[in-house]
Amino acid sequence: MTAIAELVALLAPGKVVTDPEVADSYARDRTFLEPGKPLAVVLAETRDDVVAVLGWATTHRVPVVPRGAGTGLAGGATATEGCVVLALHKMTAITELSPADEIAVVEPGVITADLDRAAREHGLMYAPDPSSYEISTIGGNLATNAGGLRCVKYGVTRDSALGLEVVLADGRVLNTGRRTVKGVTGYDLTGLFVGSEGTLGVITAATVRLRRAPLIYPATIAAEFGSPRDAAAAVAAIIAAGCQPSLLEMLDRNTLQAIDDWKNIGLEPSTRAMLIAQSDAADGPAVSERMSELCTANGASFVAVSSSVQEAEELIGIRRMAYPAKERMGKCLVEDVCVPRSSLPYMIEKIEAIAVRHDVRIATVAHAGDGNLHPVFTFDHGLAEPPPNVWAAADEVFRETLAAGGTLTGEHGVGLLKQRWLSLEAGPTAKELHHGIKQVFDPLGILNPGKAI
Amino acid sequence: MTAIAELVALLAPGKVVTDPEVADSYARDRTFLEPGKPLAVVLAETRDDVVAVLGWATTHRVPVVPRGAGTGLAGGATATEGCVVLALHKMTAITELSPADEIAVVEPGVITADLDRAAREHGLMYAPDPSSYEISTIGGNLATNAGGLRCVKYGVTRDSALGLEVVLADGRVLNTGRRTVKGVTGYDLTGLFVGSEGTLGVITAATVRLRRAPLIYPATIAAEFGSPRDAAAAVAAIIAAGCQPSLLEMLDRNTLQAIDDWKNIGLEPSTRAMLIAQSDAADGPAVSERMSELCTANGASFVAVSSSVQEAEELIGIRRMAYPAKERMGKCLVEDVCVPRSSLPYMIEKIEAIAVRHDVRIATVAHAGDGNLHPVFTFDHGLAEPPPNVWAAADEVFRETLAAGGTLTGEHGVGLLKQRWLSLEAGPTAKELHHGIKQVFDPLGILNPGKAI
Ligand SMILES: Cc1cc2nc3c(=O)[nH]c(=O)nc-3n(C[C@H](O)[C@H](O)[C@H](O)COP(=O)(O)OP(=O)(O)OC[C@H]3O[C@@H](n4cnc5c(N)ncnc54)[C@H](O)[C@@H]3O)c2cc1C
Ligand SMILES: Cc1cc2nc3c(=O)[nH]c(=O)nc-3n(C[C@H](O)[C@H](O)[C@H](O)COP(=O)(O)OP(=O)(O)OC[C@H]3O[C@@H](n4cnc5c(N)ncnc54)[C@H](O)[C@@H]3O)c2cc1C
Repeated sequence: MTAIAELVALLAPGKVVTDPEVADSYARDRTFLEPGKPLAVVLAETRDDVVAVLGWATTHRVPVVPRGAGTGLAGGATATEGCVVLALHKMTAITELSPADEIAVVEPGVITADLDRAAREHGLMYAPDPSSYEISTIGGNLATNAGGLRCVKYGVTRDSALGLEVVLADGRVLNTGRRTVKGVTGYDLTGLFVGSEGTLGVITAATVRLRRAPLIYPATIAAEFGSPRDAAAAVAAIIAAGCQPSLLEMLDRNTLQAIDDWKNIGLEPSTRAMLIAQSDAADGPAVSERMSELCTANGASFVAVSSSVQEAEELIGIRRMAYPAKERMGKCLVEDVCVPRSSLPYMIEKIEAIAVRHDVRIATVAHAGDGNLHPVFTFDHGLAEPPPNVWAAADEVFRETLAAGGTLTGEHGVGLLKQRWLSLEAGPTAKELHHGIKQVFDPLGILNPGKAI
Repeated sequence: MTAIAELVALLAPGKVVTDPEVADSYARDRTFLEPGKPLAVVLAETRDDVVAVLGWATTHRVPVVPRGAGTGLAGGATATEGCVVLALHKMTAITELSPADEIAVVEPGVITADLDRAAREHGLMYAPDPSSYEISTIGGNLATNAGGLRCVKYGVTRDSALGLEVVLADGRVLNTGRRTVKGVTGYDLTGLFVGSEGTLGVITAATVRLRRAPLIYPATIAAEFGSPRDAAAAVAAIIAAGCQPSLLEMLDRNTLQAIDDWKNIGLEPSTRAMLIAQSDAADGPAVSERMSELCTANGASFVAVSSSVQEAEELIGIRRMAYPAKERMGKCLVEDVCVPRSSLPYMIEKIEAIAVRHDVRIATVAHAGDGNLHPVFTFDHGLAEPPPNVWAAADEVFRETLAAGGTLTGEHGVGLLKQRWLSLEAGPTAKELHHGIKQVFDPLGILNPGKAI
């Protein structure tokens, strides 16, 4: 019996896909990276399916690439040649939702927004909200430690992860963490798995923290500035005033231009940056007024303040258009760097200069409150991958980021895409320790080889 | 040259203490555990001192026990026979404090409250506030992932740790994490060191997150209840109403009795539990009113609401008296378990029943908002260590905690004290992984051997 025949025999009919075309559709994420050809795709439905696959993979030394919804932007779920893609999107049960303890226990394939909606039925919310939250899975969010718009107030995915059920490379099942908000028994294995991009184990269940949902729709403002530096000064002022925005986003001129070209938002020629901010506090409207004043005091030429749910939706809608508007301009290399907040104006100016020097189109949005920038490099739709000048510009952006005390990736992960730059940030000692840890969890190196570390 | 002579030669005069009496004073923490005899104590003043000690210890295979202020309650800093105690309390520099980025860079010996005070000069605060914050060090807080009163709102020490400088067992220096609030490059080594109780490396610097300090003094309430169950119901109601208290503590009858015996607070015979709550929000007084109403609605017989800073101080002062009041009653075994919040009434009743069954005095305070209970077992001042009935009762408390979905330690750590119970919570797979990780960081096993894992 071949290895694959053995795998088919282990699992219920229909769970192992070997048709090359179907398999190929599970071999990619949202990057342009050309995947290897998987041996098979397993559509897991239970933890036992995952246990079976990993036991089998250990026996046959077959690489396993875990996959959520494939919305990743770093190539983490890209199939490697001869691997099994272990797809988890069918494990969608919300096993438990406890309003009293403000926790939920979920399977990894639950769509992020579905958990949030389920929580809201009890006056709670699941805070981490990557822009992809209608299409990404909790398992993928955990494996990448996804950020989002609300994380300026509520933290990233790690801050909501209390405990995990993980299947290890050899098929053993491990439970980490707990159902309590505090606990210090042993090392923080939960935190170690979060953000490990499927290289240490496959997450088959998670106990996550829910929070009280705000009672009213977040009051929203949008402010236009003549320079990114002014917008960044307004960000600093908003934080320093203790406004605690629940969202604080910055859009640069190129992003606004792309949106205006598409939807005609009446962009003024003099507008070079926009800030969009929300407060979901009980006194949100007052806080929004205060944020609006601070924008004006820092040079905003115009500030729109929502006075209804609908107006708030329209303002935040501008932010939502950013990515699709850029996709119209070309293929996108979506980058993701993070700097200390005070370096935001410096970075934005550097990025503008780099774009000019390399003759590259870069349009940047930033989770400004966290110093997390997404410079999106667009290139010709006809090209299979970014041309050399895009890579050269990206390389400079990474180096400037590190020089400004920042990090190569704020929320998307290293995946395959950032392997090349990893050693600029992680020195040889860190590298050695990473590989030592990997060796402890996955001695045969079958779990998502070549990714993340 | 003997090993110790070599160590003395490596470091500046006065840094190596071998006088047995002085050494003994550095060999203990706040537990009753009888330490081994250290070879020497090193009073480190710089990172290079730490590097020298660990390089030397690696050569000579001498165990090293890192020590902050020795306020630990789990025996983590207890000297083992023939070790070197590496005391870090002299490394007290606040190297950087950036209001713009809301971060500080500190040496490990900085006293927790000193950092908080330094931050407040800039309108910021360092949120984690163990009750010991006037005497414990940041390094110790990080190594134990200390909690505190404010963590119901602001999280534990891990939530404020962005990056670390760590000296590894072999003397190499590692930098983990970053200066940014977000970042996903590589595994979360920062999180791994936090709470590892000095078994993976010695923290020589930390980049920590600061937060906006509340503008007003927290509005405070104290509510008296006829049963712990009612008090627990009030806790649930306060959380469910979204009050977001910045402190939410519960004191049981025995604790109140001890305080009353000492300071005469006019305790009513019918009072069997007290809740103390604070809100540091902008609308704190209104929130406190709301919390007061919720206490009354859940059966409180009396609620005091502060109307001045001084009254607030008096109410919170009752909580501060809890531990010293118990020390008057006898020697204390301070326990620290954590359960899902909904199990709080169950646990309190179980603890009361266990106390009766084993004829043991247990007085419990709880960080109620987090489900974190501190049952304090008092025993005769004349005894060197807890008598068998205290251990038997503690054993039952641990088992009940785990049965209620809780964890053996919410914030104090495993240290030496909880080694016996560890395997009740961490199964064989988790244990194996813990020792595998330990092996990666400290292959010779010289760092705080026998602790934590
Ligand atoms: C339009 C758009 C907007 C986006 N916005 C954001 C944003 O705001 N913030 C942000 O952080 N990201 C964002 N992303 C990126 C992406 O959505 C996130 O990285 C998300 O967390 C990936 O989830 P997924 O289920 O698609 O995972 P996948 O892409 O399938 O996998 C991602 C990684 O996780 C691993 N993995 C998946 N599931 C598991 C599991 N159960 N166990 C172990 N490993 C697993 C994979 O091997 C891979 O390494 C965006 C993407 C798009 C397309
Ligand atoms: C009255 C009182 C109240 C308390 N209240 C609380 C509370 O509310 N919450 C709470 O969590 N704890 C509390 N504690 C316990 C104790 O204060 C904390 O555990 C504190 O974090 C210990 O800090 P320390 O500097 O005294 O560390 P130590 O006791 O010296 O050491 C603790 C552990 O950390 C290790 N360590 C110390 N420094 C370093 C370093 N730089 N690098 C690596 N490892 C290191 C030690 O080896 C040891 O394992 C209380 C203690 C007392 C006496």
